[in-house]
Amino acid sequence: MSGFLPEYSTPATNRRVLLTSRPEGIPQASHFALDEAPLDPVGDGQFRVRNVYLSVDPAQRGWVNAIANYSDPVAIGSVMRALAVGVVVESRNADVPVGLHLYGWFGWQDYAVVGPEAIMTRIDTVAAPLSAYAGMLGMNGLTAWLAFTRIGRAEPGETVLVTTAAGAVGSTVGQLAREAGCRVVGLTGDDGKVARCTQRFGYDAAANYKAGDVADLIKGMAPDGIDVFFDNVGGPMMDTAIRQMRVNGRIVQCGTASIANWSPPPHGPRNEREVLMRRLQWGGFVIFDHTARYAQAMAALEALLASGKLVHDEDIATGFDAAPGAIARLYAGENEGKALIFVG
Amino acid sequence: MSGFLPEYSTPATNRRVLLTSRPEGIPQASHFALDEAPLDPVGDGQFRVRNVYLSVDPAQRGWVNAIANYSDPVAIGSVMRALAVGVVVESRNADVPVGLHLYGWFGWQDYAVVGPEAIMTRIDTVAAPLSAYAGMLGMNGLTAWLAFTRIGRAEPGETVLVTTAAGAVGSTVGQLAREAGCRVVGLTGDDGKVARCTQRFGYDAAANYKAGDVADLIKGMAPDGIDVFFDNVGGPMMDTAIRQMRVNGRIVQCGTASIANWSPPPHGPRNEREVLMRRLQWGGFVIFDHTARYAQAMAALEALLASGKLVHDEDIATGFDAAPGAIARLYAGENEGKALIFVG
Repeated sequence: MSGFLPEYSTPATNRRVLLTSRPEGIPQASHFALDEAPLDPVGDGQFRVRNVYLSVDPAQRGWVNAIANYSDPVAIGSVMRALAVGVVVESRNADVPVGLHLYGWFGWQDYAVVGPEAIMTRIDTVAAPLSAYAGMLGMNGLTAWLAFTRIGRAEPGETVLVTTAAGAVGSTVGQLAREAGCRVVGLTGDDGKVARCTQRFGYDAAANYKAGDVADLIKGMAPDGIDVFFDNVGGPMMDTAIRQMRVNGRIVQCGTASIANWSPPPHGPRNEREVLMRRLQWGGFVIFDHTARYAQAMAALEALLASGKLVHDEDIATGFDAAPGAIARLYAGENEGKALIFVG
Repeated sequence: MSGFLPEYSTPATNRRVLLTSRPEGIPQASHFALDEAPLDPVGDGQFRVRNVYLSVDPAQRGWVNAIANYSDPVAIGSVMRALAVGVVVESRNADVPVGLHLYGWFGWQDYAVVGPEAIMTRIDTVAAPLSAYAGMLGMNGLTAWLAFTRIGRAEPGETVLVTTAAGAVGSTVGQLAREAGCRVVGLTGDDGKVARCTQRFGYDAAANYKAGDVADLIKGMAPDGIDVFFDNVGGPMMDTAIRQMRVNGRIVQCGTASIANWSPPPHGPRNEREVLMRRLQWGGFVIFDHTARYAQAMAALEALLASGKLVHDEDIATGFDAAPGAIARLYAGENEGKALIFVG
């Protein structure tokens, strides 16, 4: 076993975090309950994963909302859908041996009994601390690398603006943009994160969007305009940033975290003319469309990580009690780095 | 001379249509005045073009508005900026001989004294009626072909929705989409245009957006959703259509004709989440970015025209008196086909 691996406990029952009511907007602790259930049997072709790190992701908000999304809503009374990193402890699938580490759709629980369709990535060699496979080498890093590369398409010398600049995705985009030879500026939600952007993640400039007029803040950081806008929030920051885009700019719509409720959609200034006059290319990115490129992205990220050119922070809570409130905590901006829960 | 060419008169003075006041919104006849001036001298490197067909274009609204646009606003008291087709009648430029027909920035006047930078296309062989070079073989056709090809990127079997479906650009896009093997549906502003869309331009279905709920109209024509939305209008039709896009759809923003005033921008439902969830690619198209591809587009359009697969209508007024009210008439939807003014 690699020195990157913790010791795992082997509970006799399955602790689970269930969705107990349907949130409108951001899920709170009160929408979940903990329970404990007997272990499910492992069917033919299936395997049992002992979860080690549960992932907490902004996208979980969408998975529990009733409105149409890119996946069916989590059913009331069922285990909260989540990504996790774990290890195979029992297997009736020859391709997935006991001892293999996996990153996938294992839910907020101790044990998942699943088939291969639940695997997002196989961790054949554990080449970094296991937690990294749920963040920088998981959905967050893959999202940053693939969205920036495929939709952002930044050229050296261009200016890149990132929202949620200190977040798990944003901080990676900032570093990838810097490595691509861009000027990188970021918007984030408090002064501590501003400092982390410039001191830890290598942003050329960063600003607290709550501390001034956003149009002025962007203009101060990017006086000649923005070539690539990597947006995780939508809303007023989008309204302002799109009006400072340079001709032929690209907008990566990777999230809409600033808007708590889309039903009905809130109103804002129309952007058709900005798209037209600035010849923008505004594209939506959902990681699950890009499975064929995960291996390429992981290899690139592992190389950057190994070379020390890419840093990442993790905010790791311990135990299931942390889970119910974890999504709300994320939307309140209280985490510093990728939010994970250690349950191994 | 080709049989496609009319006879031209040779006035001794230059009749001109001047912009006399700055419109807010759509320019009306009252914003213009006719005058008559002596002929300008032809400088070294310049040439004199006798205009034959003046073009009337939706984009002229933007050229006279004071707010920032992709070109400087037309100055008060100067000749209205316009494209036109004409013939060189005097030249001090060896590359631009007398008798050559040109399409370019010659303004609403009898004669333009210009240099080569004013040429949009050279008409070395007049292979179609001269008026076509101001429409189907001019900015409208080039816009349709390049925007549809470069941003729309429709595949056979996809569904394409076109707004201003019977217009000079829209009707061409509709036919190009049909030739590309797509299902093509259109929105237009009266029942006569609906009939022209299906009977003359080969749309699979068309609807009068004033005659029903636009969401229902689109759903009726494209029950499985839209892959490519070629939009010339923005506004409420955009709001509705974007919510019926299929995953990985493309939006070509080619105009925003439904919005009379962008200062300040009107508000509408936010589209960030639609872009994200539907993985849209929303791109702005301005023809002047694509000069390097004009020849490719013209060759393709000429071939389609010669084969009879592409039809186009022209709405040709005669004489300068038609010019001042021509843009307002266009926005009122009163023209049937490409609006031109014959002044030859």
